[in-house]
Amino acid sequence: MIPSNWYNIIPDLPSPPPPPLHPATMQPIGPDDLAPLFPMELIAQEVSTERFIPIPQEVLDVYRMWRPTPLYRAHRLEKSLGTPARIYYKYEGVSPAGSHKPNTAVPQAYYNAKAGVRKLTTETGAGQWGSSLAFACAQFGLECEVWMVRASYDQKPYRRSLMRVYGATVHASPSPVTGAGTKILAEDPGSTGSLGIAISEAVEVAAAAEDTRYALGSVLNHVLMHQTVIGEEALKQLPEMPDLVIGCTGGGSNFAGLAFPFLRESSKTKLRAVEPEACPSFTRGRYAYDYGDTAGFTPLMKMHTLGHDFVPDPIHAGGLRYHGMSPLLSHMYELGMFEAVARSQRECFEAGVHFARTEGIVPAPEPTHALAETIAEALRCKETGEEKVILTALCGHAHFDLAAYDRYLSGEMQDFALPQERIDQALDGLPG
Amino acid sequence: MIPSNWYNIIPDLPSPPPPPLHPATMQPIGPDDLAPLFPMELIAQEVSTERFIPIPQEVLDVYRMWRPTPLYRAHRLEKSLGTPARIYYKYEGVSPAGSHKPNTAVPQAYYNAKAGVRKLTTETGAGQWGSSLAFACAQFGLECEVWMVRASYDQKPYRRSLMRVYGATVHASPSPVTGAGTKILAEDPGSTGSLGIAISEAVEVAAAAEDTRYALGSVLNHVLMHQTVIGEEALKQLPEMPDLVIGCTGGGSNFAGLAFPFLRESSKTKLRAVEPEACPSFTRGRYAYDYGDTAGFTPLMKMHTLGHDFVPDPIHAGGLRYHGMSPLLSHMYELGMFEAVARSQRECFEAGVHFARTEGIVPAPEPTHALAETIAEALRCKETGEEKVILTALCGHAHFDLAAYDRYLSGEMQDFALPQERIDQALDGLPG
Repeated sequence: MIPSNWYNIIPDLPSPPPPPLHPATMQPIGPDDLAPLFPMELIAQEVSTERFIPIPQEVLDVYRMWRPTPLYRAHRLEKSLGTPARIYYKYEGVSPAGSHKPNTAVPQAYYNAKAGVRKLTTETGAGQWGSSLAFACAQFGLECEVWMVRASYDQKPYRRSLMRVYGATVHASPSPVTGAGTKILAEDPGSTGSLGIAISEAVEVAAAAEDTRYALGSVLNHVLMHQTVIGEEALKQLPEMPDLVIGCTGGGSNFAGLAFPFLRESSKTKLRAVEPEACPSFTRGRYAYDYGDTAGFTPLMKMHTLGHDFVPDPIHAGGLRYHGMSPLLSHMYELGMFEAVARSQRECFEAGVHFARTEGIVPAPEPTHALAETIAEALRCKETGEEKVILTALCGHAHFDLAAYDRYLSGEMQDFALPQERIDQALDGLPG
Repeated sequence: MIPSNWYNIIPDLPSPPPPPLHPATMQPIGPDDLAPLFPMELIAQEVSTERFIPIPQEVLDVYRMWRPTPLYRAHRLEKSLGTPARIYYKYEGVSPAGSHKPNTAVPQAYYNAKAGVRKLTTETGAGQWGSSLAFACAQFGLECEVWMVRASYDQKPYRRSLMRVYGATVHASPSPVTGAGTKILAEDPGSTGSLGIAISEAVEVAAAAEDTRYALGSVLNHVLMHQTVIGEEALKQLPEMPDLVIGCTGGGSNFAGLAFPFLRESSKTKLRAVEPEACPSFTRGRYAYDYGDTAGFTPLMKMHTLGHDFVPDPIHAGGLRYHGMSPLLSHMYELGMFEAVARSQRECFEAGVHFARTEGIVPAPEPTHALAETIAEALRCKETGEEKVILTALCGHAHFDLAAYDRYLSGEMQDFALPQERIDQALDGLPG
């Protein structure tokens, strides 16, 4: 039931996405430029033109610990809404780390171990990705060093604990152990950090050591491709083709992982990405070349971005607080292959509580965005009488985010207005 | 694959367990004595002599949200130990509340709703049971009011949050809203509470209101019976009969739920209960009639007890901190139908970290007791070369217990010596 291949959508697109550029030369980067950061097999996947790439047996053996993940019909949610829509959700929270992230952490750790790498570095916001990579490294005997955004490091000690249980070393970012971190701390000793800063730190350490590489939890082509195990399973599990697939987007891997196989197999299926109003890269960002990190260590990628200096307001959906977006998804959005909407924090938590009380699972703040949109769509169907088939991505549980639900239930949660001038200001600094 | 019947082991025993007694008359209690606390269908299950009791369709519909639960072969753990033993574990952490507790919370809520009850009260220690009953009440439209032991209420805010997300009202116990709580607070305003006190509060409120009943998460016959869904599933999932079933015991429902069907089907299978050294009711308690709660509101039950005044040291396995034990299991222990051992807190957490790094799942503090014993048994097999087949109960995950792992990893966790005089003193007050 676990698929034997990942699906690479790029050869099925009318045109490939624009290449990443080297910031010094503004020329497309080659495999050698990426070699200090990634092992060759992952670089090959990043630029592959094969539609299907076999999943190695060693990776399948670990996937089997929680895959295939369940696909549920949301009977109780439907009933509570009185909708004629049929709602299905694919639940990735059954993984050891509690989200879809291990789907790519495991192959990334595997290919690095195979290439003789000793240690992986990475960044993490709320800790979903860091704990997934820590788990994967424990499976393949790799060391794991994580830079965790300071705000989350202080507010979410249990994700940090989880990484430690799996044997990882965790730094608050900005940290004094890197040049990038030291520089930022000198300017602002009280910095609460950002994903962009943490990426700079992890990349700096990986690039400097021969036996160390870097791993990214979203955005890149190979990451999105690893996540297609979600959609491939859903294709086999669903009793009917969906009219609409809804997923939340931060870097884009969860949405892409569920949606891409349906683009291949079903002409009637439409896709909708949901992002937070506080970090609206699709709906209010610019499609332009930008850095993936704050310090400008990464190649330039053409993507929907709010500017690499943009620091999103502290919404609880830490996994969606990224200034950029997957270049592949950005390209497809420009081609009109899916739509995107933004949702406010409080309407998302309202949906999360509604979902928990009907379906039992308490959704992480990130997928509450997809659920808020799913509920809104189901209520539209109630008005029109349309028996729309909706598939949504429940990419993780909220066991480490219950303080946020407490704030919502106590009426203390706020929404964040994002004035246009803040976006304009951040975009002003775009390179190129 | 979900079983269609619960298994009631009582008719298969050589003799039935001694009956509960009314403390005033010292005569066996009848159904009418229990009617203020439980609906008639649950009372009937408590005293049933039928071997199999059909699971209602409404309960199966909710079980289906997470059942059947996975049964895994612990290949990676075996390999890390170099043992010839074959280790299997049944994982109950995939339930919405994260443990085996919803297996009984759901039928209890169902039978109460069917009987026209409006509200359920209960106690909870670390919060596993309270969040399970809150989830179950949300499924059947019941109100839920929980008394949570003060120490956990303050130290584990996220379990409290989870109950609130499911719509329950949560009090710290002892609380000023009951007579029992008020009395204890008057004597000791800083009381951190105990399960025995919280039971007194929940029972008091249920007994006083016509439309309110009480629910207990372990100990009673019907609770153990509901948990046999675990063992019935495991029987069908296992490729070979186990030589040994190992489970942790607090009130006994997790151990009984996994083990009872194997007692019925396999003559070669031996059972071993594992309890904490800090709360050793089987290995150091007395088999005697005692109250289930601190205030003495419950009937007297013949069980292995440390005395209803006994307050266990604050180990992190809150679910195992109960002075008594299931009367049914106590009777079977006296009949020599299984063995029992005790494990210290630190050896349990050591096993938990070992398990997390090999099998991926971080076990709750309670099942680390079973895992510590499983690992010890597997290492014995390594010495003898015996290819023993071991089945263990992984009854929940540690997503709400990571602070405890942090303490262990930081070297700050302590073991608790339990001097014999503390046990003697508590047993001294036994009634009868």
